[in-house]
Amino acid sequence: MSPRFELDHRLAADTVEVTDLSLCHVRLMNDRAVPWLLLIPRKVNLRELYQLTKKERGQLMDEVVLSQHVLEALFRPEKLNIGALGNMVNQFHMHVIARFRLDRAWPNAIWNTTPIVRYPGDEMELMLRSLRAEFSQELVKKAKH
Amino acid sequence: MSPRFELDHRLAADTVEVTDLSLCHVRLMNDRAVPWLLLIPRKVNLRELYQLTKKERGQLMDEVVLSQHVLEALFRPEKLNIGALGNMVNQFHMHVIARFRLDRAWPNAIWNTTPIVRYPGDEMELMLRSLRAEFSQELVKKAKH
Repeated sequence: MSPRFELDHRLAADTVEVTDLSLCHVRLMNDRAVPWLLLIPRKVNLRELYQLTKKERGQLMDEVVLSQHVLEALFRPEKLNIGALGNMVNQFHMHVIARFRLDRAWPNAIWNTTPIVRYPGDEMELMLRSLRAEFSQELVKKAKH
Repeated sequence: MSPRFELDHRLAADTVEVTDLSLCHVRLMNDRAVPWLLLIPRKVNLRELYQLTKKERGQLMDEVVLSQHVLEALFRPEKLNIGALGNMVNQFHMHVIARFRLDRAWPNAIWNTTPIVRYPGDEMELMLRSLRAEFSQELVKKAKH
């Protein structure tokens, strides 16, 4: 039996499930400062980008761009940030983050900055509903092209 | 006449030219703490990943992976970090960084951390020579596959 993909428990603890795309599991960072998505390819033992095939890298880019369109449509950010670091949790995960001139860390990188304020429950529900609806819309748009 | 690609002067000031790949201009950050490459697609007014075509994104990924192979071969890092932020300089540039357990910022992100120590001239020359030789080798390897 081949090993099954399992989300790292530290990534799971800081985030909430949004949706699943063809390659990636998509989660929302529970950090109210900025809309912050994590894309985790459902591949076992994936640490570095270069371990993906050319085709999988293309799919990852498609899903990053789809996520960027979702964040642009919902939040009109000043800038989008993307990154895959993995120094603490080495399960490959790509950050896709909407940044604003008045956010906690602007214009610096937002990783490892504090204080992290969690979403109140009702606000989290609203975020998830908006994100899921926008992912569906963007997927429909993409399918039409 | 269509506008010509010009490197942002702030990116130019912090970095030194390494080589040119099909899509990207490659530069070395003048920061002795870690081997740190910048890949800048030679496209005018490029700010965000989603502005690239699917084909260009594929090429960017190929060149990021090539750069990762170069850093792995030369420096055997603990982890590779990649990221495109652009909050300060919005000309699109992708960071490809070799990280080590004893580097200045480990395990945090290295952006905006200090103090930055520049390469002494002879060490910079050696770095550039090693990087250019390894890029050539990796390109040959890739062409053979």
